[in-house]
Amino acid sequence: MLDSKSESLKGKILVTAQPNPDIDRVACIIGYSELLQKQGIDAHPGIVGNIHREALFILENFNVNYSKVSEKSISGFDEFILVDSSSRTGLSENIDINKVVEIIDHRKSNEAHVFKNAKIQIEFVGAAATLIVEKFMESGTELSEGSRILLYGAIVSNTLNFKSNTTTGRDKKAAEWLKKRLNLPKDFVRRMFLAKSDFEGKNVRDILMQDCKSVDKDAKVRFSIFQLEVVDLERIIKDNKKEILGFLKEDKIKQNLDYIFLTGVDLEKGFNMFLAVDDKTKSLLEKALGIKFSGNAVRREGLLLRKEIIPIIERYF
Amino acid sequence: MLDSKSESLKGKILVTAQPNPDIDRVACIIGYSELLQKQGIDAHPGIVGNIHREALFILENFNVNYSKVSEKSISGFDEFILVDSSSRTGLSENIDINKVVEIIDHRKSNEAHVFKNAKIQIEFVGAAATLIVEKFMESGTELSEGSRILLYGAIVSNTLNFKSNTTTGRDKKAAEWLKKRLNLPKDFVRRMFLAKSDFEGKNVRDILMQDCKSVDKDAKVRFSIFQLEVVDLERIIKDNKKEILGFLKEDKIKQNLDYIFLTGVDLEKGFNMFLAVDDKTKSLLEKALGIKFSGNAVRREGLLLRKEIIPIIERYF
Repeated sequence: MLDSKSESLKGKILVTAQPNPDIDRVACIIGYSELLQKQGIDAHPGIVGNIHREALFILENFNVNYSKVSEKSISGFDEFILVDSSSRTGLSENIDINKVVEIIDHRKSNEAHVFKNAKIQIEFVGAAATLIVEKFMESGTELSEGSRILLYGAIVSNTLNFKSNTTTGRDKKAAEWLKKRLNLPKDFVRRMFLAKSDFEGKNVRDILMQDCKSVDKDAKVRFSIFQLEVVDLERIIKDNKKEILGFLKEDKIKQNLDYIFLTGVDLEKGFNMFLAVDDKTKSLLEKALGIKFSGNAVRREGLLLRKEIIPIIERYF
Repeated sequence: MLDSKSESLKGKILVTAQPNPDIDRVACIIGYSELLQKQGIDAHPGIVGNIHREALFILENFNVNYSKVSEKSISGFDEFILVDSSSRTGLSENIDINKVVEIIDHRKSNEAHVFKNAKIQIEFVGAAATLIVEKFMESGTELSEGSRILLYGAIVSNTLNFKSNTTTGRDKKAAEWLKKRLNLPKDFVRRMFLAKSDFEGKNVRDILMQDCKSVDKDAKVRFSIFQLEVVDLERIIKDNKKEILGFLKEDKIKQNLDYIFLTGVDLEKGFNMFLAVDDKTKSLLEKALGIKFSGNAVRREGLLLRKEIIPIIERYF
């Protein structure tokens, strides 16, 4: 595959994604840039905006070299590669979509067709990082330690430590390959997950807004689901319950929604907690998920991700 | 990659493309079905409708086993894989686009986003067959002789025997890999090209209609370009000139076109011939391509494909 790259990629290339990247995007940006550079291509990692907490934890604690690019300097690049991204939405306006030459993603709903000149790879693995690791495995190129730990962290994070139903054998294989080449501290996964479970000194509203999905179902039913993926979920909910409920109540009115709730996922213990403020939403969740609210909260054993919850509840509208 | 397939592909799968497939599609359908079958997947080759002449030449002269599926039996399959295809246009109505699980293509303009559940691979090589051959090369699986010769023929045909500007190093590498494993007759390429150069007993109109591209430029300028890729172009043009000119004249009026012409490509000698019936088209081609018509015809040295001609002439409207 080496020839193919050098054949098609010319000029100064930015490997990038939507701004404010999470760990999967950061890992793909840094990892894929490294692979291309080692193939003699003038590729640059394009991290734009604020980096999510898990990625920051790795970058800062494991001495990974990284740099960010400004919105303004983006226009200095000749071509673009999008990783863990396949839509125009949210992309920097300085990226000319006709100059996007490659797309690597793992999400089902994509807008890949608008990128008329892009080579496209979309495969349904748990983490986009797995697709990048496979390219290293196939090419026989050695990865730097920083990229290894970032890509490993991305796979662990995206698959909820291999517990999510989106996990595939390929994710496990890629992570195994990396792990053999890493000397990880024993508590690595717990420490990374704790990094995104730290509510100290942060506004509850800001934290919730980081992971919200709003859906218009047939333009008739409108709902928003907030998700918290943390370690020590029970304590975090308890400490912040009042603020979360207040926020849900306020947002339901403000956005004129039919349903609104929070689903919390305990990354270590593998259970969910749901918070809801109105009887309509509570009744929907009780019917759809076979749970029983006590006041505004309920715990459910087993791990359910939001992307799995949405199709279940949609059948009950 | 073997695990990934067996993980995601379930049930009875049809590997298919738009009906009336050309040699690239036929080769991909038969070749990819074979690879999947060897991975234990219940995959079936889905050739629908009439097979183009080059593919028929190989199927009939080199004892390749093949079967066709009827429009009706398509609904008996659980999932679909599209090869050398990424659009809905022209697909059988019996293919539920939500059941398309994989797309392998090499064309820039695609509709891949409408296939919400499909893993997507779109890479700009000369022949889609190259992408299939690479999968065999990577997996270490042996190909049957029939698939080897079909895939080789597809790469030769799509790249005009490696002369077209769309040819990449990957096409050459894949073809080399196949050639080493084949005992081809010396005149194989010429015989295959002759198979599509045989006008004997055929209606000129039918032959021209097999390779026509009509374009609406900004909904203002409308033009149609017919293409003939043959061996012995000069003789074929001479023998059929009257019918071709009559057809162009008639079609220009019928379709209410601004421009219409035929571009002929000599597959062996590497030159073009253009036929046009009206002064407006002749003047456009003369300016854009630096040629000079003598009557209704002109010869131009060097090989120019229609996909290269279109952007050149569009600048002159």
